[in-house]
Amino acid sequence: MRVLILGGDGYLGWPTAMRFSARGHEVSVVDNFSRRHWHERHGTDSLTPIRGLDERIKAWQEVSGSEIRSHVGAIEDPAFLEEVIVETAPEAVIHYGEQPSAPFSMANREQAVETQYTNVIGTLNLLWFLRDHAPDCHLVKLGTMGEYGTPNIDIEEGFIEIEHKGRKDTLPFPKMPGSLYHLSKVHDSHNIQFACRVWGLRSTDLNQGVVYGIETDETAQDERLCTRFDYDEWFGTVLNRFCVQTVVGHPLTVYGKGGQTRGFLNIRDTLQCVELAVTNPPESGEYRVFNQFTEQFSVGELADLVQRSAAEVGIEIEIDHIDNPRVEAEEHYYNPVHTKLLDLGLEPSYLGDELVRSMLKMIEGHRDRVIDAAIDPKTRWNPSQQPAATR
Amino acid sequence: MRVLILGGDGYLGWPTAMRFSARGHEVSVVDNFSRRHWHERHGTDSLTPIRGLDERIKAWQEVSGSEIRSHVGAIEDPAFLEEVIVETAPEAVIHYGEQPSAPFSMANREQAVETQYTNVIGTLNLLWFLRDHAPDCHLVKLGTMGEYGTPNIDIEEGFIEIEHKGRKDTLPFPKMPGSLYHLSKVHDSHNIQFACRVWGLRSTDLNQGVVYGIETDETAQDERLCTRFDYDEWFGTVLNRFCVQTVVGHPLTVYGKGGQTRGFLNIRDTLQCVELAVTNPPESGEYRVFNQFTEQFSVGELADLVQRSAAEVGIEIEIDHIDNPRVEAEEHYYNPVHTKLLDLGLEPSYLGDELVRSMLKMIEGHRDRVIDAAIDPKTRWNPSQQPAATR
Repeated sequence: MRVLILGGDGYLGWPTAMRFSARGHEVSVVDNFSRRHWHERHGTDSLTPIRGLDERIKAWQEVSGSEIRSHVGAIEDPAFLEEVIVETAPEAVIHYGEQPSAPFSMANREQAVETQYTNVIGTLNLLWFLRDHAPDCHLVKLGTMGEYGTPNIDIEEGFIEIEHKGRKDTLPFPKMPGSLYHLSKVHDSHNIQFACRVWGLRSTDLNQGVVYGIETDETAQDERLCTRFDYDEWFGTVLNRFCVQTVVGHPLTVYGKGGQTRGFLNIRDTLQCVELAVTNPPESGEYRVFNQFTEQFSVGELADLVQRSAAEVGIEIEIDHIDNPRVEAEEHYYNPVHTKLLDLGLEPSYLGDELVRSMLKMIEGHRDRVIDAAIDPKTRWNPSQQPAATR
Repeated sequence: MRVLILGGDGYLGWPTAMRFSARGHEVSVVDNFSRRHWHERHGTDSLTPIRGLDERIKAWQEVSGSEIRSHVGAIEDPAFLEEVIVETAPEAVIHYGEQPSAPFSMANREQAVETQYTNVIGTLNLLWFLRDHAPDCHLVKLGTMGEYGTPNIDIEEGFIEIEHKGRKDTLPFPKMPGSLYHLSKVHDSHNIQFACRVWGLRSTDLNQGVVYGIETDETAQDERLCTRFDYDEWFGTVLNRFCVQTVVGHPLTVYGKGGQTRGFLNIRDTLQCVELAVTNPPESGEYRVFNQFTEQFSVGELADLVQRSAAEVGIEIEIDHIDNPRVEAEEHYYNPVHTKLLDLGLEPSYLGDELVRSMLKMIEGHRDRVIDAAIDPKTRWNPSQQPAATR
């Protein structure tokens, strides 16, 4: 199958590219290296010393004998994107090509606009070019569980049947996202659903949880194939941050009460899920949503897990409840349905002490690359005050 | 009160500016004349010969003795908008400053992107500058009833209480909009709600129906104060189109079956509603939604009304059901709640033969300005096919 991966130089994009290449698909990747640029701008970097895209592709060819083609440019640039779609004639597009950080989007107006522009306009360009040049192509779009927020009812997979005043309809699940980044994903979801409904495109919207882990079958084959590992306040996620804090001897920074609960999954399961979506495409005109995570944890539970796992290897680390830089509910109901990918055959790898210990070991190996100043949160959701969040 | 009107040169913006000025408020308007430019680009024009903004303002000063200040620029331009917000220090912003046409947004990729960029990024800029420079300001944002689409349940005003699997929450009403323009308004709504929730801004989102009519107390005072009247395929709405078709002797073009039902209101009621919203502001941090229309009609009912009203003045006109250029349900349930503005004191002017006859007379007076080629729809929602719409 001809597979086009947008954001193919990224944390998930690059391992996805290798996975599909390893399975014999014809893989092309698009990237404009914005993630690398944003890190440079912020004085941060991946903990793992990732290679440039050309070097990665060369190394992959040496290791696997397979070619991955690359196109360097921005999906916001219509002339570039149109040429890529025409030239690669994709049967599946896997779209990771977005600004993926909530705090990045909340830091200032410029970055908020950059986030919504990159994500919404980039995806809108894509929808038009699929309409015009590849209407049968299956768009696999990475969304986020954060689109839903934390409602007081069970979260369904994209749609909910509502009974109201004696009548019934199945409608998009109402969204209450927690950052301008998460909002950009909600906007994407609405635009994509519309393109399916009106233009007959087909799409799977993967509302993904927080991804952890760094090793896949392909990255493990050669150190030049490793993927990025972010732990900074913008691009790092909570488990990465806790593990890096453990290695550098910084107390684990739980934001507020720590009852914030989210869905999580291993990077290996991300690859499984994307593969399951691609190999089981929806009908033409169909827009479907899969909630893509395998387990849910509160931030406090993760801190406990890391503390316990660290203790097993002789590291004593404290847990520190710091003032929450975000505006979010710190205690809330959370019960999202996530059966559709399991029904397609997903076999989860669950999070446990062993994985945390392997992360600690990996980080230990790159201890000299840790930029301590990058870890603590400086971006506040509401700089003027900290109102009590209600959800 | 210091009132800033974005899109203050437009169909509703200009009459709103005069209304607030007439009430003794300190009024500033912002416009970049994009509506005039879009018409030029498309070879169309307002039926009424509207004056330039400077001339309008001068005429208003002659007539009323009151000054309206103007700022010419785009809200997408952050340096411009920030300066305006700082300089005018608004207590209320009335935001009409968006691309308002569904077919314009569906015609091609460029216009789709222009629509979502202008509307979403412009409003996002505004939210940041209100946060930073006018956090107590009341943002009165013009949304549209089209954000809801045509669900099979009653449409509530912005939020709906959902009971699901034994639990309950009140959540944003799920949206199924019918064009990329309508989607841009949905994106705005989500961004604004977030800004209220997280930054403590206050906003009223007016989900407006289709506005008809042209005369207000202020426009009637001097012909130089008249507002625009659009009837072309992009910016004209259905009642305007039917009335112009009647005058030029073109059969009334009902799209498809004509069961498409929407909310409507007189331009006089728009001014009343906006005034009620401004003079009854929400609390800090509150985001509220009013469904702003007074009556609902199907397209077929409007065609019948125009046909009947025309007959009364001796014009026989036929009704022609043409192939629907849009993808939309042509028969559907429609019952949106719209009590909040009535509760605040809205006194509706209802649509009847008399108003239609006065529109026909007004159009007759400008018969020589009608551009016949502009009327018929050329923009198709889905150029490749016309699937049966399901909603």
